[in-house]
Amino acid sequence: MTGEADIIQRYLAPLASGYAGAFGLRDDAAVMAVPPGFELITTMDAVASGVHFFPDDDAADIGWKALAVNVSDLVAKGAIPHTYLMSLAFPEAPKLEWLAQFAFGLGEAQVAFGMTLIGGDTDRRSGPVSITISAFGLVPMGAMVRRGTAQIGDKIFVSGSLGDAAMGLKLRGRTDDAVAWGLSADQHAYLVSRYLRPLPRLALAEALRRHARASMDVSDGLLKDLRRMTAASGVGASIDSARLPLSPAAARVLTAVPGEISAILAGGDDYEVLATVSPAHVAAFQTAARAARVTVTQVGQIVEGTGVSVKGADGSEMTFPPGTDGWDHF
Amino acid sequence: MTGEADIIQRYLAPLASGYAGAFGLRDDAAVMAVPPGFELITTMDAVASGVHFFPDDDAADIGWKALAVNVSDLVAKGAIPHTYLMSLAFPEAPKLEWLAQFAFGLGEAQVAFGMTLIGGDTDRRSGPVSITISAFGLVPMGAMVRRGTAQIGDKIFVSGSLGDAAMGLKLRGRTDDAVAWGLSADQHAYLVSRYLRPLPRLALAEALRRHARASMDVSDGLLKDLRRMTAASGVGASIDSARLPLSPAAARVLTAVPGEISAILAGGDDYEVLATVSPAHVAAFQTAARAARVTVTQVGQIVEGTGVSVKGADGSEMTFPPGTDGWDHF
Repeated sequence: MTGEADIIQRYLAPLASGYAGAFGLRDDAAVMAVPPGFELITTMDAVASGVHFFPDDDAADIGWKALAVNVSDLVAKGAIPHTYLMSLAFPEAPKLEWLAQFAFGLGEAQVAFGMTLIGGDTDRRSGPVSITISAFGLVPMGAMVRRGTAQIGDKIFVSGSLGDAAMGLKLRGRTDDAVAWGLSADQHAYLVSRYLRPLPRLALAEALRRHARASMDVSDGLLKDLRRMTAASGVGASIDSARLPLSPAAARVLTAVPGEISAILAGGDDYEVLATVSPAHVAAFQTAARAARVTVTQVGQIVEGTGVSVKGADGSEMTFPPGTDGWDHF
Repeated sequence: MTGEADIIQRYLAPLASGYAGAFGLRDDAAVMAVPPGFELITTMDAVASGVHFFPDDDAADIGWKALAVNVSDLVAKGAIPHTYLMSLAFPEAPKLEWLAQFAFGLGEAQVAFGMTLIGGDTDRRSGPVSITISAFGLVPMGAMVRRGTAQIGDKIFVSGSLGDAAMGLKLRGRTDDAVAWGLSADQHAYLVSRYLRPLPRLALAEALRRHARASMDVSDGLLKDLRRMTAASGVGASIDSARLPLSPAAARVLTAVPGEISAILAGGDDYEVLATVSPAHVAAFQTAARAARVTVTQVGQIVEGTGVSVKGADGSEMTFPPGTDGWDHF
């Protein structure tokens, strides 16, 4: 028998064993006490088969990704990841091996991110497998880093490297293309893993709380997300494409296929941090990021006006027609 | 243009205007401060078209129901409803009139339940329209009422009346059946509205915190949910079917169709409270419920053993084969 209660107790309850307020997933609700001096930060993101992952992706990767995309939001706000709720929808009773693998990947992600499952819901309905997570993080009272608080003159930073996941998505299962693009097997595997297993920059959260003026994660492409930040802040932004941080693999791709600059600027699934830092804080932010062992790169600055302009390698202004600048969910 | 951002700002942001930590739905996360001495209770439930509601239901009713089913969990735990996150999934861009109606019903529910939207997610994917909500409530530290704490000798209470929604579901759009079952037009409309617009018993939360030993909501049918409570508590339960609280409309149906007792015992969507109360607290619980203007009815008691036995009107034991005792989600 694999009724809802059995599935929950066998595969999911072990993920909740670290948190007393989850009651072993045997109650209708969970309880969270927030330590004095802290606030709870909360976000909610869903991933669905055929949209955010492929039906034949390893279920462990799917579990990882479902949690990682939520943690990415928390981290960009300066929060310490804490707990999460998860709602699962399946068109038919899931295979037990799939569930076991899914729970395994989720467990790996929990350990990596310091989180515990505390509750949720499972349902059977038509349509793709989907996983909706509400994630909770803690921040010292008033310390959440906002999206709409960038100011003119701020320097724009991104963490890690951009475009890897978008390239990895294109190269998933396509060894021939990877070879044609001049990639080694390791570089090919690296790009695909960046798509399958996003790595939110947890270690950067404190540096963001202390030094960033505005921050959000890059999930729908740098241009689109930076546009959102500038629109929310009532400012413009200028990006220098020569400064965009590239992994060795992405740099190799760009050499072979210069048009793939679109993956760097507009590809989705980066799950890096996009932050602005006032000039007075730049040195301290860079020092804190270095101490946290997270690469951060200054890619431009906040300017007067609206929208985002991108300076090409030759100094010319690059333009991106509507619809080519990142992912919209509709 | 009806991109994600437009939909959020036009239809959903007004629902978030009452809560500063929602940042007008213009940030990536929301922030909640929990008052000293309180804990946060959280639950997560999804509703999907074709499973929990009909595609042609009034979108305002769908919005109401999506929030109500979550509030029902909070209330049964003794919590004061507070805020919620919502993830929407649509197979195609939703019609604007649909969204307007949906937001209207959600707004009515917010006012009725004292809640505010604080964040979420919208996505386009194949499959049915689905609405996943994480709801938050506040309880005084340590005061959440558990599911697995019923004790032998406790009296079993349910709020309101049972089976109305299950009958309403059968009678939705079926005036002929309603007439054949001897119902007036008002009674027919009442039963259908109990299906479309569940009314969580908010006013009962304080009485539950003070006097209930165990509590949960009845959403998948009394028998199934009581079995869950007894299993979690390591006890059995005995129910007297003659005591089950019936609305006048449901009583009329039972007269015409005695077999509809199954709707009372095992029909879903009641969203009433199922609570156990120690004998020493029964009088105080009843007084508190009366003061809160919520009908509560003693329907049986917690006994030694396992499982649930139901005494029929003639004193005989009623039995329910597996699969006929309520809704399983798989």
